Amino acid sequence: MTGELVGIGVGPGDPELLTLKAVRRLGEMEVIASIASDRAAPVAERIVAPHLPAGARRLAFRAPMHADAAVRRAFYDEVAERLGDELAAGRKVGFPCLGDPLFYGSFGPVMARLAPHFPCSVVPGVTAIQAASAALRLLLARGDESLLVLPATLPDTELAARLRMAECAAVLKVGRHLPRLRRLLAGLEPGFEAWIASRVGTAGEHLAPLEAFRETVAPYMSLLLLRRRAAPPR
Amino acid sequence: MTGELVGIGVGPGDPELLTLKAVRRLGEMEVIASIASDRAAPVAERIVAPHLPAGARRLAFRAPMHADAAVRRAFYDEVAERLGDELAAGRKVGFPCLGDPLFYGSFGPVMARLAPHFPCSVVPGVTAIQAASAALRLLLARGDESLLVLPATLPDTELAARLRMAECAAVLKVGRHLPRLRRLLAGLEPGFEAWIASRVGTAGEHLAPLEAFRETVAPYMSLLLLRRRAAPPR
Repeated sequence: MTGELVGIGVGPGDPELLTLKAVRRLGEMEVIASIASDRAAPVAERIVAPHLPAGARRLAFRAPMHADAAVRRAFYDEVAERLGDELAAGRKVGFPCLGDPLFYGSFGPVMARLAPHFPCSVVPGVTAIQAASAALRLLLARGDESLLVLPATLPDTELAARLRMAECAAVLKVGRHLPRLRRLLAGLEPGFEAWIASRVGTAGEHLAPLEAFRETVAPYMSLLLLRRRAAPPR
Repeated sequence: MTGELVGIGVGPGDPELLTLKAVRRLGEMEVIASIASDRAAPVAERIVAPHLPAGARRLAFRAPMHADAAVRRAFYDEVAERLGDELAAGRKVGFPCLGDPLFYGSFGPVMARLAPHFPCSVVPGVTAIQAASAALRLLLARGDESLLVLPATLPDTELAARLRMAECAAVLKVGRHLPRLRRLLAGLEPGFEAWIASRVGTAGEHLAPLEAFRETVAPYMSLLLLRRRAAPPR
């Protein structure tokens, strides 16, 4: 009997955006691992709870906040060692992830450490980008357009240079970067129509054109969707 | 009683990657519309069939192939008029889409014409990009990295300029552009590790490093996933 590590995308927050495959795989898990200090963890927890077998054991790890790279590496080494024990004992270990397991988030470093030694599979999930565009009924990309996904944590020069070549974009990790993003977007020519989507598919969902959103810090789980007003110069 | 247009993402091809919401909404539909000459339509058809109510009526439209913009516009006008009749009669009209309804594909022009006049909602879906990265167990993006999604139909200069600023990328609509993409990728410095994923989640699924893939035309429903070998110059 061999253990298996399963990264399970649980979708962006709406419990109905779980896939049939995620439901099936959750029902097979003997251990459910999560990184508890991740603010997405309680949302994922509520989504998966109804689908877990009665005997599933929870393993919650607390990640060091604002730690340097060496501390973070040591933390993930420890998580991998602990989960490796469960896998070596032949257990199925699920790692539920809000959105998609391989699209940002904390499953990547866990998988990188364990996949060379144990069977590992991944159930893809609906991302917050797809959910936000659905809620706004906003086309993400069509025809020959490209879609650029970029984190607000990049420096201004990088954001501007990349956005100048994008027809459509999604900006993640908005949070306290919102005022900086507003200034940056105001300086781009041709400009973008911009929307902000927060906590999509949860009770706190909020959708608005960016110009109508008056806060200076975006709520957690916010993203911007951008669509260029005119075609970029070729 | 008012009709409703529902764009329903059915995921990338694996019938288990339907969401619970897609299953529920499919079960409520009175009319199911599709664009039959779209090669994705039969795949979507097989996925949705088990979830439709017995009385659901099918409306399949045949899009003009290789038509100019005016002919395509007239086609979508006709589709919208026909579906508008159903909506005006108070019926629920589902439009199943492989992947996600607002991420490329044919739902966009239908929604653009009908949403101003009738209630319209969208169920987001798992994209082929997420499914390919899951099947390959390949991280799409992490930390401060960006992900660029771009269609192979863009000119070489556009593709090269955009890829020079990307850490991770997905290239869609590969098809006959494969030899051109190979040459272009070989000329980029620093280069990308590249994988090709075809018909992910279907019986014909094929995954390979691009250098090990010997065909000159990619099968339909193929995409490339790219990850930069070293950090881009800043």
